[in-house]
Amino acid sequence: MRKLYSYFRSSAAYRVRIALALKGADYLTVPVHLLRDGGEQHLPAFRALNPAELVPMLDDDGTLLTQSLAIIEYLDETCPGPALLPADPAGRARVRALAQSIACEIHPLNNLRVLAYLRDELGVSQAARDGWYRHWVEHGLAVVERQLAGDARTGRFSHGDTPTLADCCLVPQIFNALRFSCRLDGLPTALRIYEQCMQLPAFQSAAPERQPDAE
Amino acid sequence: MRKLYSYFRSSAAYRVRIALALKGADYLTVPVHLLRDGGEQHLPAFRALNPAELVPMLDDDGTLLTQSLAIIEYLDETCPGPALLPADPAGRARVRALAQSIACEIHPLNNLRVLAYLRDELGVSQAARDGWYRHWVEHGLAVVERQLAGDARTGRFSHGDTPTLADCCLVPQIFNALRFSCRLDGLPTALRIYEQCMQLPAFQSAAPERQPDAE
Repeated sequence: MRKLYSYFRSSAAYRVRIALALKGADYLTVPVHLLRDGGEQHLPAFRALNPAELVPMLDDDGTLLTQSLAIIEYLDETCPGPALLPADPAGRARVRALAQSIACEIHPLNNLRVLAYLRDELGVSQAARDGWYRHWVEHGLAVVERQLAGDARTGRFSHGDTPTLADCCLVPQIFNALRFSCRLDGLPTALRIYEQCMQLPAFQSAAPERQPDAE
Repeated sequence: MRKLYSYFRSSAAYRVRIALALKGADYLTVPVHLLRDGGEQHLPAFRALNPAELVPMLDDDGTLLTQSLAIIEYLDETCPGPALLPADPAGRARVRALAQSIACEIHPLNNLRVLAYLRDELGVSQAARDGWYRHWVEHGLAVVERQLAGDARTGRFSHGDTPTLADCCLVPQIFNALRFSCRLDGLPTALRIYEQCMQLPAFQSAAPERQPDAE
């Protein structure tokens, strides 16, 4: 049985939940609470499975997979269901680059552990940490907007008219931006695609508040 | 003609230079100086091509590609030469996850623009910025070491006995760690693989000091 080690609020886990739902792939959720008891991801039992002490991790019948984008590509290569990457190399590169514009340029700066370092090691105030968070989200999403709006390959979704890996990353990032009251004016294309995605049951069922460990 | 927009010290550009060299693919270097005149990546002429205002960017006969990992996968899919990803989905997922453990967990925190924000917006001292840099490199490489040392699929290189996308990411990260005097004890496997890579002409020719824009 496929098991996803997940935390409802982890946006990296959220990406994988969307991909699993788009593929129609069954799985059990194993909740890993990132805040309880100093973080369950640091427990020896979890660390023995994943030295990175991060969620998501997918256990596919004993094959352990980490890093959300790598997991999604694995699902695309091994599961039936709609393709999450285009067939042409240039299109695949574009979808991966859009995903990485979020997964490498925005999200790593706003992880829980980074915010904790700012607070505990550098003594950065709550207000300045909030400013940091919004800065990277707003700057990063403005880049994504230009990448989307300036390319004829953008369709109803980030690339063409079906959801891809890029949308699996875009939706959780917009969700976080909304949660932390980031400025979203100037993002008409990204928000249009977000709304389009949220019409689909796969995106709805993957949302944080629909998870078994939601609080 | 293939053109790589590169900066000799960019470790993301370094990754792509390694992949191009492993593939034996010819290209012209277009230097983009990230520090001169406030950063040439912000010039309107470059920004019009790449809204992210980042290097590397590959121009493959008019197809513009961004994000180093996406570019390397594109090269692997379109160029002859040795494969940079294994054939089996689980192996591909492992190589991608190793690459992303560097490209998503370490490198984004130590970008020039992040260090500039710490200095200019948060007033973080040089000593504390150096501590930040070393913290994320040392923590992140310790994770990579455990991922490498604890998996029988690690061979002469990060995955098996030929270089992959994972090695394209590992070498520039170790190079940076050496440059910034990070602690590297406790990384016997990562350092062994680094030394192994640096025996190969492809890794040697991609090094920062060998680039036309090296200072």
